[in-house]
Amino acid sequence: MTDKKMDIIRALKRAGNNPISGEELGGILGISRTMVWKYMKALGEEGYVIRSSPGSGHVLVSAPDKLYPSEIMDGLDTSIIGGDIRYFDEVDSTNDVAKKMGSSSDEGTVVIAEMQDSGRGRKGGHWMSPRGGVWMSVILKPNVVPAYAPRFTLMAGVAVAKAIRGLGVEASLKWPNDVLIGDKKVCGILTEMDAECDQINFVIIGIGINVNVLIEELSEDLRSSSTSLSEIKGEELDRIAFVQALLRALEDEYIRSKTSGFDSILEEWRSLSSTIGRDVDVVTPQRIIRGKAVGITENGTLLVETAEGLEEIVAGSCIHG
Amino acid sequence: MTDKKMDIIRALKRAGNNPISGEELGGILGISRTMVWKYMKALGEEGYVIRSSPGSGHVLVSAPDKLYPSEIMDGLDTSIIGGDIRYFDEVDSTNDVAKKMGSSSDEGTVVIAEMQDSGRGRKGGHWMSPRGGVWMSVILKPNVVPAYAPRFTLMAGVAVAKAIRGLGVEASLKWPNDVLIGDKKVCGILTEMDAECDQINFVIIGIGINVNVLIEELSEDLRSSSTSLSEIKGEELDRIAFVQALLRALEDEYIRSKTSGFDSILEEWRSLSSTIGRDVDVVTPQRIIRGKAVGITENGTLLVETAEGLEEIVAGSCIHG
Repeated sequence: MTDKKMDIIRALKRAGNNPISGEELGGILGISRTMVWKYMKALGEEGYVIRSSPGSGHVLVSAPDKLYPSEIMDGLDTSIIGGDIRYFDEVDSTNDVAKKMGSSSDEGTVVIAEMQDSGRGRKGGHWMSPRGGVWMSVILKPNVVPAYAPRFTLMAGVAVAKAIRGLGVEASLKWPNDVLIGDKKVCGILTEMDAECDQINFVIIGIGINVNVLIEELSEDLRSSSTSLSEIKGEELDRIAFVQALLRALEDEYIRSKTSGFDSILEEWRSLSSTIGRDVDVVTPQRIIRGKAVGITENGTLLVETAEGLEEIVAGSCIHG
Repeated sequence: MTDKKMDIIRALKRAGNNPISGEELGGILGISRTMVWKYMKALGEEGYVIRSSPGSGHVLVSAPDKLYPSEIMDGLDTSIIGGDIRYFDEVDSTNDVAKKMGSSSDEGTVVIAEMQDSGRGRKGGHWMSPRGGVWMSVILKPNVVPAYAPRFTLMAGVAVAKAIRGLGVEASLKWPNDVLIGDKKVCGILTEMDAECDQINFVIIGIGINVNVLIEELSEDLRSSSTSLSEIKGEELDRIAFVQALLRALEDEYIRSKTSGFDSILEEWRSLSSTIGRDVDVVTPQRIIRGKAVGITENGTLLVETAEGLEEIVAGSCIHG
């Protein structure tokens, strides 16, 4: 959306139920009434409902259910994350787009889409991303070594869990990269990086959340293990408000990791986790490790107490017992 | 270069000093004499000198001094590296091009350029890449964790040193990523990766070698610490033959790392290194470590015996004493 259209929406929002005339809008934006009319028409095509009464003016009736950057940025009080938001109606994968943009983008740039055709999970797995969800990738440029990459998955998990809890829903974290409600998955996180051997150029934190997703729209094999926020709440959520809360939470955690160190985030991950304290089976390419999950390290590895002793697991699929 | 042009060059090379007629070439390639003539003209524009005598035929007199994929691939007996070679006369950075292509490219794809406008060294440093050098990036897709990335720098160093030694020039390896002749830099290696937290999607091994580079063309601050193969040999080298030898050496080391394990490469790195056994100052962002370099680990870290004991250094600039 162009800046002028954003400005019109802002002016209309500010005016609330008081009509603003085309002349007044033109004055605020420094454009002609003809241009105001053109933008109004374009806004209507984008799904904004604007009531126009000859002689009095225009009133914004409703905004479309779209993740438009102008809507997300309106009232977003972050200083790093969301300074630049790139919107796509449909995209292969927001992580792939973010990766291509990464080196030339500002830290905190967000790529967001209404749907993904080839959303990815860990190790190239497919991630279903129908309309109604929030599919986004955040570009960060921390000055750290590649070995720290798993920290961003943990950090994002904490932020997502907090944003969901802000809606009054009990979300928990499942190692390594899922957010659950009860025992069902509502969100997956895929952190990727572009790095030299000893320094990350940038990380991409991919976050996919079933917000207003109809579970029947997911493939059959996923339905029994997945849920969505709308299914839990029994109503559709305001996705814009949710994304704003999530970006806010992400920024809070990111700043916390920089100022207070990663330990406090790790501590919170543990307390939000439904994996720790649980009997688990962890499937790795080599074998299945069975035992009780007793902790997580700052490198993101899971500690499992097995019959043979304590095991530290770098990567695997975790099945809660 | 199109396949047909490559086929013409191959046919001419095979014929040596025996002229081939346009009709004969057309027959071999399955195209008309008019098309043969068109391709001949295009080849002339690319710098190939072809002597054509009416009535007898065509003889290849000389190929241009260009790193054309068709020339590199002609006689290249590798099975992984160089199966696909992308050529640029001028490019910002071959690593950047390779990074963008990485996920959709075959393992072993090479990006090569006559010059780079924004060649990069470690930590975003500039790398001067004038004409005459070999500036290339190799895409590998090993199934390993991100922590193994430094191994590819060491592996490439061994391959470059061997390729240079194949010319009868004593090259040595300087930690972490340079190849020296005497105490002057002839090559730098920049390994980058696209990775998930626990798995590399692909690595890019960037290799910049001053082959036929005039040292006077480098910026003044680099001249005293740099050399080129042509300076050492006192004559220009056949860059195509050198690139072929290098790709061959890279593939040998890569296969060795997969079949015999990384230890044998590490052992060779040590024996080719002029850092090990040397008094060094290692400059890190935090401090300068002074001591004797006594070893290197499989993670690419340098072991330095200091007055205070043994130090393991992950990253830094090494100054040979």
